Amino acid sequence: MKKLPAVQEFIDGILKQDIALLSRAITLVESTVAEHQQLARQIIEGVIAHSGKSIRIGITGVPGVGKSSFIESFGLHVVGQQHKLAVLAIDPSSQISKGSILGDKTRMEQLSVHPRAFIRPTPSSGSLGGVARKTQETIMLCEAAGYNYILIETVGVGQSETTVHQLTDFFLLLMLTGAGDELQGIKRGIMEMADALVITKADGSNIDKAKAARAEFAMALHLFPAAESGWVPEVKTCSSLTNEGIAEVYEMIEKYRRHSAINRYFEKKRTDQARYNLQQLIDEQIRAKFYNTPGISEKIKSLEQLILQNKMSPYTAVEHLFVQ
Amino acid sequence: MKKLPAVQEFIDGILKQDIALLSRAITLVESTVAEHQQLARQIIEGVIAHSGKSIRIGITGVPGVGKSSFIESFGLHVVGQQHKLAVLAIDPSSQISKGSILGDKTRMEQLSVHPRAFIRPTPSSGSLGGVARKTQETIMLCEAAGYNYILIETVGVGQSETTVHQLTDFFLLLMLTGAGDELQGIKRGIMEMADALVITKADGSNIDKAKAARAEFAMALHLFPAAESGWVPEVKTCSSLTNEGIAEVYEMIEKYRRHSAINRYFEKKRTDQARYNLQQLIDEQIRAKFYNTPGISEKIKSLEQLILQNKMSPYTAVEHLFVQ
Repeated sequence: MKKLPAVQEFIDGILKQDIALLSRAITLVESTVAEHQQLARQIIEGVIAHSGKSIRIGITGVPGVGKSSFIESFGLHVVGQQHKLAVLAIDPSSQISKGSILGDKTRMEQLSVHPRAFIRPTPSSGSLGGVARKTQETIMLCEAAGYNYILIETVGVGQSETTVHQLTDFFLLLMLTGAGDELQGIKRGIMEMADALVITKADGSNIDKAKAARAEFAMALHLFPAAESGWVPEVKTCSSLTNEGIAEVYEMIEKYRRHSAINRYFEKKRTDQARYNLQQLIDEQIRAKFYNTPGISEKIKSLEQLILQNKMSPYTAVEHLFVQ
Repeated sequence: MKKLPAVQEFIDGILKQDIALLSRAITLVESTVAEHQQLARQIIEGVIAHSGKSIRIGITGVPGVGKSSFIESFGLHVVGQQHKLAVLAIDPSSQISKGSILGDKTRMEQLSVHPRAFIRPTPSSGSLGGVARKTQETIMLCEAAGYNYILIETVGVGQSETTVHQLTDFFLLLMLTGAGDELQGIKRGIMEMADALVITKADGSNIDKAKAARAEFAMALHLFPAAESGWVPEVKTCSSLTNEGIAEVYEMIEKYRRHSAINRYFEKKRTDQARYNLQQLIDEQIRAKFYNTPGISEKIKSLEQLILQNKMSPYTAVEHLFVQ
C-alpha cells in the first residue's frame, strides 16, 4: 500500500466524489490491520452525516441465474436515469469459491467503465458478522461519495441473505424459468424475504416458459400473508440479452420507493435495521466476552452431552454454568 | 395449595402415571415462587430419563379456524389408536386475551373426560422465554407420565410459533377455506414452517371451496424450496363435524414419523433443538447480566439516537459501550 493520506484528505476526497480515495477507504474498511481499522473508523465518522441518502437493493439468486448479466443491463438502465450506482457483493464463502461473484469485472463490460457506476469487485470474506460490518461501512462510504443507488449482490444459497435483507431496502430474487428444479439451490425462507421475483433469460424459446413461471409464482406469492410493508411482492420476467423487462424492474422499484415513502415504511425499516444492528453488535460483544472464559466451551459441551442423553434438563445445565 | 408432597413422592407418582401429581408438578413448574421452582427442578431431574419418548406436534391457526373442535376430533382419534395424549397451550399474550385458547375445557367435551387424554387448560403466561421453559418442562413431565402424543396449541398471530416450532417435531397449520382474507391474521413466515396445512370446516356447502383451496395451497407449497427434513408439506381438508379427513391427518403424521425416523431427521431435529435451546438460555443469562448494569439502557438509547440521526456509526457506538 502506498503511504496513507490523512483522515481529512480521505473525508474531503470522498465528499468530492474522488473514486480513487473512495476505493482506498474501502480497502481500509476491509483490512484486518488495527491501524487501518482505526483510520477507516475515523473516515466513516467524518462522512457519516452525508450517508443514508440512497436506495439499497439486495440481489440474490443461485449461480447460473445470470446475476452478472442482469446487473450489467439493469445497472446501465439505472445510470441512464442519471443515478449514481454502486455495486457491492457479500460472499462469506468466498474463501472457498473464490471469485464466484463479481470476481470478474469483465462480465460487466459497459457498466464497469461507466462514469456513474462504481463496481467493487473484491468479494468480502471472513465471518458473516465481519462481512456485514464491512458491507455496511462500505455502503456508508459510497453514499457519502454521492452514490444513490446501491446494489448488493449475494449468492442465494447461504445465510448471507438474511444479512443482506437487514442491510437493504428492497430485496430482489432472481429465478430461472420453470418451477421445480431451480429451487433446489435456494434456501428455504429466502423466497419469503423477496419484495420481487425476477425471472431471467426470458428470451428466444424461453419466453413462454418464463411467462408460465411468472404466472405460477405470482399465484404462489399471492397466498403468502402480507408483508409488514404492505407491499405485495411482484413477479417480473426480463432478458439481459434483449433488455426486455429491464425498465419494468426499475419502474417497480421506483413504485416501491413511493409506496414505502408514503406509508413511511422506508423510514421505519431503516430505523428498525439500525436498532437491530446495534443490538446484534452488543450481543456479539457480550457473547465474545463470555465464550472467552477459559474452559467454558468444554464445560458447555459436556453439559450438552448430558442434555442429549436425557440426563439433565437444559435449565439445570444453565444453573451449573452460571452458579460458580 | 395443600401441603406439598416430597420430591420422591412426586417422582414416583408421575412415573406411575398419577394424574393428580402430574398436575400439581406442572403447577409448580408454572409457579413464580422460588421454593416451588426449586422443587419443580428436582422433580424434573428425577424423571428426565423417562422423557423424550413422544411425538410433539405444534398446532396453530387464527382464532375462528376451529382449533378446539379440531383438537377434540383429532384427539379422540389419537386416543382411539391407544396413544396417551397430552394437550398443552402456549399463549404469551394471555394476560390480555385471557382464556382465548384452551380456556374452556368444555369445548373438548369428550376428550377432556377420556382416560387416555390429559388436557392442561391453564394457558401459560409471562414472557416468551418463560413460556418456552414452562412448556418444555411440562412436556418432559407429561412424557415421563407416559403421554406419547403431545399437542401444543398456539394462536397463529404472534412470535410464539417460532418457539413452538423449536419445541415440536411436526408443525401443523390450520386454515380456513378460500385463499386471501383468512391469511391476514397469520404472520408471515408461519406458513413456511408448516409441515402440513389442514383446511378445516370442509363440510356442507364448504366442501368445494375447501377442495379448491387445498389444490391452490398444494401448488403454492410445491414452489417452496425443500425443507431440511426432505419432507414435502402436505395439504389436507377435514371436518370436525363429520370427522371426514381426521384419520388422514393422523396417517400423515405417522407417515412423517416413519419418514423422519428413516432419514434420521427426527433425531437430528431433537439434537438441534436441544443445542439451540441451551444456546438461547445461555444468551438470555449473559444478556440479563449486561442489561442489569446500572445506566446501560439509557446509554444505549442515547447512542441509538446518534446512530438514527447519522451522527455516529453503530460500530463506534459499540466501542463507546464497551471501552469504559
